[in-house]
Amino acid sequence: MTYCVAMKLDLGLIYMSDTRTNAGLDNISTFCKMKTWEKQGDRVITLLSAGNLATTQAVVGILEELNHTYSQSLHENRTTLFTAETLFQIATLIGQIVKDTIRNIAPGQQNADAFSASFILGGQIKGDVPRLFFIYPEGNFIEATKDTPFFQIGEHKYGKPIIVRAYNPAMSFEEATKLLLVSFDSTLRSNLSVGLPFDLLIYKEDTYVKGIQKRIEKNDPYYTNISDLWSDALKKAFLQLPPFYF
Amino acid sequence: MTYCVAMKLDLGLIYMSDTRTNAGLDNISTFCKMKTWEKQGDRVITLLSAGNLATTQAVVGILEELNHTYSQSLHENRTTLFTAETLFQIATLIGQIVKDTIRNIAPGQQNADAFSASFILGGQIKGDVPRLFFIYPEGNFIEATKDTPFFQIGEHKYGKPIIVRAYNPAMSFEEATKLLLVSFDSTLRSNLSVGLPFDLLIYKEDTYVKGIQKRIEKNDPYYTNISDLWSDALKKAFLQLPPFYF
Repeated sequence: MTYCVAMKLDLGLIYMSDTRTNAGLDNISTFCKMKTWEKQGDRVITLLSAGNLATTQAVVGILEELNHTYSQSLHENRTTLFTAETLFQIATLIGQIVKDTIRNIAPGQQNADAFSASFILGGQIKGDVPRLFFIYPEGNFIEATKDTPFFQIGEHKYGKPIIVRAYNPAMSFEEATKLLLVSFDSTLRSNLSVGLPFDLLIYKEDTYVKGIQKRIEKNDPYYTNISDLWSDALKKAFLQLPPFYF
Repeated sequence: MTYCVAMKLDLGLIYMSDTRTNAGLDNISTFCKMKTWEKQGDRVITLLSAGNLATTQAVVGILEELNHTYSQSLHENRTTLFTAETLFQIATLIGQIVKDTIRNIAPGQQNADAFSASFILGGQIKGDVPRLFFIYPEGNFIEATKDTPFFQIGEHKYGKPIIVRAYNPAMSFEEATKLLLVSFDSTLRSNLSVGLPFDLLIYKEDTYVKGIQKRIEKNDPYYTNISDLWSDALKKAFLQLPPFYF
């Protein structure tokens, strides 16, 4: 499993992803699930992935291959991460690659569902606002709006209630990081297949350059502290609710 | 979907279940998912069910049929809810009925998984302590212990974090009711297929008689209040956590 979140804020975009990959409970590895491409002054594009690692790596690999053949792409007028004019075009491109990748491998396999993968695509291309897309394994996608300004992929249930309640588009990147850490903590406590370290990235609107990028390691003192305090805070909040009487 | 919880307390057992049943989003009904059998002075047995309604009603129906042929059962030495000597025997009986029910209907159907169902069985039979079992659709089961003193069936993820953090075996039935209401509130907010009213039942150890039984209706003032306050309490708890700095 996996847990990744991307949120739209008034200030820009924020992303967090865990790094645990597992093939069964006895085969755990660490893989970064966040990939960022940057052309300073022009675009910053981030992709979060959940699902089959071979599928997600194939998708990123094909995107990179397209970038390497950049000049031909320009010549052939083929869309790449760096030639696309909008994030919508990139979502379409990635959707097509995901669908093709799964269609190439899944049919006829014993466990055809095992090859599935979902993605969150975010970023800003000059001339457009920051945008966020959720790309399905079927290749189609949806875009975040004011009503639904964040996307989660992977194990989204445990960590959702606090985001729903505490999210506020006007929050600072620091507050949003705190919120994501609490959401990740709730997920980590209930699902063994989500694990530290976490990758964090912020993108400040109209900068066209990667913002702060940070890896939150296993013994990160702030995270450890938040994790303990949140447990106590929940218990205290519960005790302070009015008592029930039969 | 469904949400049901049963918890072992030092004082006895407490159960809560929602009542929403749906066949698609446009076909919603209300069904009680909690069934209790009582022989005062001897036993109180409660069954919570999640899954296919035809399957769960068939299981309860067959248990009732066995009760109706009670005298023959005694004669034939056949186990029923009222002749079993231990709750383990009843869990075995129900497991067998679940397995048979699903095996009778599922094979060859287009969507064979759709007939699945899970159960929580709890209660006390004279001569034994209160016990709690989780019965799987495959017919096998596990029993609650000190380490894992509660079971959830149905949509268990949203409501689990608060139970894990605030549960305490020494809590009163009133405190446990409050805890369950908060857990149900978190679930309700995130999953449309879990709905009010809720059914609540308590069983006080060594009484061999049903305790308080209550239906929490849609406009229950305590529940509405708790639901609003919990949202605020979570937000406040979050704000009080120490700030993050890059």
